[in-house]
Amino acid sequence: MIMSVLTPDEVFETLATVRDRRPRVHCITNAVAQNFTANMLLALGAVPSMTIAANEVREFTSRSQALLVNIGTMDRDRSEAIDLAIEVAGSEGIPWALDPVFAHSSTVRADLARRLAARRPDLIRGNAGEFEVLLDAWPDEDRVAAYAAENRLVAALTGAIDFITDGPRRIKLAQGDPLMDRVTAMGCAGTAVLAAFLGSGIMPLTAAAAGLTVLGVAGEMAAARATGPGTFAVHYLDAVYRIGHHDLAATMKEAET
Amino acid sequence: MIMSVLTPDEVFETLATVRDRRPRVHCITNAVAQNFTANMLLALGAVPSMTIAANEVREFTSRSQALLVNIGTMDRDRSEAIDLAIEVAGSEGIPWALDPVFAHSSTVRADLARRLAARRPDLIRGNAGEFEVLLDAWPDEDRVAAYAAENRLVAALTGAIDFITDGPRRIKLAQGDPLMDRVTAMGCAGTAVLAAFLGSGIMPLTAAAAGLTVLGVAGEMAAARATGPGTFAVHYLDAVYRIGHHDLAATMKEAET
Amino acid sequence: MIMSVLTPDEVFETLATVRDRRPRVHCITNAVAQNFTANMLLALGAVPSMTIAANEVREFTSRSQALLVNIGTMDRDRSEAIDLAIEVAGSEGIPWALDPVFAHSSTVRADLARRLAARRPDLIRGNAGEFEVLLDAWPDEDRVAAYAAENRLVAALTGAIDFITDGPRRIKLAQGDPLMDRVTAMGCAGTAVLAAFLGSGIMPLTAAAAGLTVLGVAGEMAAARATGPGTFAVHYLDAVYRIGHHDLAATMKEAET
Repeated sequence: MIMSVLTPDEVFETLATVRDRRPRVHCITNAVAQNFTANMLLALGAVPSMTIAANEVREFTSRSQALLVNIGTMDRDRSEAIDLAIEVAGSEGIPWALDPVFAHSSTVRADLARRLAARRPDLIRGNAGEFEVLLDAWPDEDRVAAYAAENRLVAALTGAIDFITDGPRRIKLAQGDPLMDRVTAMGCAGTAVLAAFLGSGIMPLTAAAAGLTVLGVAGEMAAARATGPGTFAVHYLDAVYRIGHHDLAATMKEAET
Repeated sequence: MIMSVLTPDEVFETLATVRDRRPRVHCITNAVAQNFTANMLLALGAVPSMTIAANEVREFTSRSQALLVNIGTMDRDRSEAIDLAIEVAGSEGIPWALDPVFAHSSTVRADLARRLAARRPDLIRGNAGEFEVLLDAWPDEDRVAAYAAENRLVAALTGAIDFITDGPRRIKLAQGDPLMDRVTAMGCAGTAVLAAFLGSGIMPLTAAAAGLTVLGVAGEMAAARATGPGTFAVHYLDAVYRIGHHDLAATMKEAET
Repeated sequence: MIMSVLTPDEVFETLATVRDRRPRVHCITNAVAQNFTANMLLALGAVPSMTIAANEVREFTSRSQALLVNIGTMDRDRSEAIDLAIEVAGSEGIPWALDPVFAHSSTVRADLARRLAARRPDLIRGNAGEFEVLLDAWPDEDRVAAYAAENRLVAALTGAIDFITDGPRRIKLAQGDPLMDRVTAMGCAGTAVLAAFLGSGIMPLTAAAAGLTVLGVAGEMAAARATGPGTFAVHYLDAVYRIGHHDLAATMKEAET
């Protein structure tokens, strides 16, 4: 077991890569999260697309550098679109991230989450309840690492502490702010950001760790300017847009002391 | 006819109950309002869910403490989901609130609003045009009270003055700010807030009156910080999150003078 | 070729007309843009409606003063709704604006954009990639003007410089701010604003030119207050709500120097 830690330099370098590459990320995501997700990707410097129409999702996915699959609100169009998009991603080697939103809230959704997780995403980001469904057991660190190794993916279990692993390597992060739980679609948009890192040619473990660090530091930057969840969400987008080496160095250092 | 008035103490007590209970509110609401509604519930301290998938809406509703039905944008999935969710709410005793958005704007929608109103919601919130459809007459106070008594529900007719009644009891509120009319989904998200009060074990009349007072006072708090509808919406979420006894006491007192 | 230029007085006069008429604009637009579009129309002083249900879209369109058709995210309901709404607009003389979003991103969408453009919209607003699909050639100014003349519509080709033409007359605008590209649905909501100008009885060429001037000046006003795309979007709505003669005179003058 290796506890990797990224330095501010490394995080900034990956962020600069994303801003430079401007990856297209095709997002099949829930209706609640679509607008905020698109704004988050634009703030980051990526290019979002969002169509779920069966007759064009293949083409949109094929032209993207990464795919996001989020099951937050399901309907007939989305189910079909997800299947088609994953098929294209698989055959064209486009990396994809899965967000099994609310996997623990209905049996239909639990089945769907398990089925999608079996289709070889490069990255799964979820909370404890969502990973519990995938693992069929409480997601302690060893179990999550075993799951990641077995399925050859990176698991990012997020919460007050984020735990990221590809099996052999494990990373923990303690950035962020409690206001992040008071804004809808923060997690969903966050997974889209991780997809943008994947789509910039960054390896999944680094993509997840650097991406979640950026998101957490942005949360702390936004909290410093916010008076509640409304202003927080707005300043969060500003922070994702503005975050620089100095912010990472200052805030990442603070979190370790 | 009794004109009930809630004191700042009573309003704050119900608000504290909602924040403490953190009720889950399942929302079948229109596409325009979903994001803002989820953010409003999170700001309040409630837990939103939004799925409209036929194969899981029963389970989501069953796990919730309240249900919101809003007809603002209708489609095939929503129509089916509404029927299923109301059925579950009825059989499991989960309180539900109806928002007959735009009932007066199409005949299809007027029929739908009347049909849903007949399925025993605990609370209907609408404007004058919407209640006119339900009453088949201009909604003066006596008619609204008679309608509420007959249908054993609480009617909340909102506008510059809010009128709330269960038939015998009548409450009038004059909180709020004109900028509330310049932000989409304010009313829709407001009905979701009333549902959260219902879902915290608060009786419908008190839920409606306390909830609308909180919303109106939050509107006045936000207006004091806003320079237009964009900043207003953001500060409104902050106000719903931050509003305390002092704000209620100060602002409710002002409104009576 | 005539290069028309609107004066601040003329722009303000059309804006005052829109604020006075409060036109209803029925919007069939993409899921990502619905909320921001509704908020933009409300900030402007117009009245949005958004339903895409086949059984009521005719009635909503018929009661509106203008129609917006945006193809940003397509699904079964939207395809049907668009056909019905355009039919009503045509037979009742309701002006409509087309936003061929992402026409260049899939062949299905390119076909759809061409088919809709052939149904006599009063106004098409798109970027270079989108107009390239409609013209089947790179949209230089002469080609766009020829296209507008042939199809008897106003073409508004937007970018760093906006080019507006009905064929014989040509207008160029250089207002705006780069942050407008970092907020999703800015273009979509902008086309809705142009539809509101059309729906206030303003001739298409003036509607496009005055509307785009208002949007550009609002962008410059918002940028002066923003620290990133999150605060920018919020201040943009405020600016659309507040913009007055003084703002137009000050900012339009600056852009010419």
